[in-house]
Amino acid sequence: MTDSGFPSTTRELRSTVTEDGTLTVDVRSADVAEPGPDEVVVEIHAAPINPSDLGLLIGSADVSKATAGGDDANPSFSAPIEQGLDALAARFGQPMPIGNEGGGVVVAAGSSDAAQALLGKTVGFVSGDAYAEYRTVHVMGCIAMPDGTDPVDAAAPFVNPLTALGMVETMRMEGHTALVHTVGASNLGLMLQRICIADGIELVNIVRRPEHVEMLKANGATHVVDSSAATFVDDLTEALRATGATIVFDAIGGGDLVGTILGRIEKVAVDGAAYNRYGSDKLKQAYIYGGLDRSPTILDRTFGLTWSVAGWLLTPFLAKIGPDAQRLRQRVADEITTTFASSYGMRLTLDEAVDPANVVRYAKMATGDKALITPNA
Amino acid sequence: MTDSGFPSTTRELRSTVTEDGTLTVDVRSADVAEPGPDEVVVEIHAAPINPSDLGLLIGSADVSKATAGGDDANPSFSAPIEQGLDALAARFGQPMPIGNEGGGVVVAAGSSDAAQALLGKTVGFVSGDAYAEYRTVHVMGCIAMPDGTDPVDAAAPFVNPLTALGMVETMRMEGHTALVHTVGASNLGLMLQRICIADGIELVNIVRRPEHVEMLKANGATHVVDSSAATFVDDLTEALRATGATIVFDAIGGGDLVGTILGRIEKVAVDGAAYNRYGSDKLKQAYIYGGLDRSPTILDRTFGLTWSVAGWLLTPFLAKIGPDAQRLRQRVADEITTTFASSYGMRLTLDEAVDPANVVRYAKMATGDKALITPNA
Repeated sequence: MTDSGFPSTTRELRSTVTEDGTLTVDVRSADVAEPGPDEVVVEIHAAPINPSDLGLLIGSADVSKATAGGDDANPSFSAPIEQGLDALAARFGQPMPIGNEGGGVVVAAGSSDAAQALLGKTVGFVSGDAYAEYRTVHVMGCIAMPDGTDPVDAAAPFVNPLTALGMVETMRMEGHTALVHTVGASNLGLMLQRICIADGIELVNIVRRPEHVEMLKANGATHVVDSSAATFVDDLTEALRATGATIVFDAIGGGDLVGTILGRIEKVAVDGAAYNRYGSDKLKQAYIYGGLDRSPTILDRTFGLTWSVAGWLLTPFLAKIGPDAQRLRQRVADEITTTFASSYGMRLTLDEAVDPANVVRYAKMATGDKALITPNA
Repeated sequence: MTDSGFPSTTRELRSTVTEDGTLTVDVRSADVAEPGPDEVVVEIHAAPINPSDLGLLIGSADVSKATAGGDDANPSFSAPIEQGLDALAARFGQPMPIGNEGGGVVVAAGSSDAAQALLGKTVGFVSGDAYAEYRTVHVMGCIAMPDGTDPVDAAAPFVNPLTALGMVETMRMEGHTALVHTVGASNLGLMLQRICIADGIELVNIVRRPEHVEMLKANGATHVVDSSAATFVDDLTEALRATGATIVFDAIGGGDLVGTILGRIEKVAVDGAAYNRYGSDKLKQAYIYGGLDRSPTILDRTFGLTWSVAGWLLTPFLAKIGPDAQRLRQRVADEITTTFASSYGMRLTLDEAVDPANVVRYAKMATGDKALITPNA
């Protein structure tokens, strides 16, 4: 390895659930591992709190009851877990590292050519423990950014960009020609819209507030439907008719939205067709990739028998496409400040990330209010 | 063709929905078509009312309000449709033939070798218009039964037998090794149990009454779980653990049963495993192939992100397996009075099938009370 000097310890966040139903997230110290041949040490400038991080970070704890703890050197918060504790049994008592991804600068590298090539570079990385000042990560988990990239811009290279690209790839692989996305105004939604414009794909964006319609249209969207509008179902039907979309990606999960969309796809498919007691033979596919609403999914099954609703996860998708994933990663690097740009509503140091007032705010996952942890700020 | 003498007209059932929201099912007369080269004329002895027939036969009509109509020669009943009328717009005013399948004797045959080979034979057939005394059907829609088969025993050769075989084939094709069936005490459930015993496959039967547990066990079932029992969830979990079942076939559709089963499959999969925020990576698959409960499907999503719930239909399944379907058809013929035997709770002539008292009874689809229409009785 090349030792350009990195600290032997780092401050980091850990999340612990105990059997008595208490969640504690604390700032503590940990060793920074010497990089192996194919590893690098990243000085972490920024790491987002994605919805996919919150499950591990706060689980089903009631953060409205969070209380501060620890001391100035090692602050923490604790909150009670009043439901869903059983599902967490496998993590009882284990202080779990958190943070799927981040961006920073490579300050030390292992002996391999691949690791050495990253020395001094700005990288985005995926690691599962990104909420720390320094981490030792495998080169395969890094995407080298073009020279001059601000490490903060590299902080969200995996979860949202590859998920958005994965949706378009899935759409093509499964024979659909246009898609529906239920959280159009999210960072991921904006990325997906930019991909669809670049690739000439029709996208139906569903948003939850009138002001988001204008925001998306200002970003070039053609089809934006507001689920809070009285005309929602008709608007949706017209957008589905105009685009021919038959596949849905949904991050909300709870409630009747997915079922409503499938019902309207079916409505468009059967209009003018001969009656078939089993509904249209057009496959109506929905993938639930998030759970912003943790309540049950309600499917009224007014869409015949040719349908599928399934979970969608990035990691198995990437495993399925194999070497093709490299093409997607390269696109992320090439377009990190354009197609794949993210914006944030708050920046928090590690200490600020365990302040109960901030926890309550980022746990809401409000559109436009995403948190960015800046461990070296 | 060989004309061994068949009537030029037949009595038949037709189902009509009008735009004002009235369903009428009547007995009327129709022509019997001369068979083409690859067609045969079947004298129909029996045709079951499967759940899959009821959708077309009575749709969403409120049969508790059915009233008799017509006259002795052409009796009928009518009932109001108070919800779901929109979904039936494509059939307004069209008197639709009904009856997916039946059994009978071939009394005339077209000129082809395939048609001639069936002359005088007992056949089971699929046609979509089986509630009639005589029908002209394509040889591909017929399964010739072993000599000496009672045509009544041949009445249900397609829907249940091929669906039950299709479940086992789907299980194998998709890499599962054991399965769950949610209506274990149904005719189809009993067939599936017999197939699984013959093929050495572990099956978890869910039934809705204590007496059905004993009935299935008397039929050789090992795993029978009563969803009305206080211990249902624990019993189900143990059966899933014992069998390793990860695929579910459900005919109920409405309510939280499918979600509960997926949750328990997940529970078995994660027991003793390291914590994974996205749940187990074991695919949990449910297929909904019927809708005995028309209320919404409620999925609480306590089963990670590696899951799929989809509609399942026989016809596209058969199309997918292509020539393999012949192997399944031959098995049905070979085992029509054993593995694929059906039983019925009532036998009805065409006239009796439009008697409102009978309609109310068969519309309930109660286990053990299936109706068999016997047009030539």
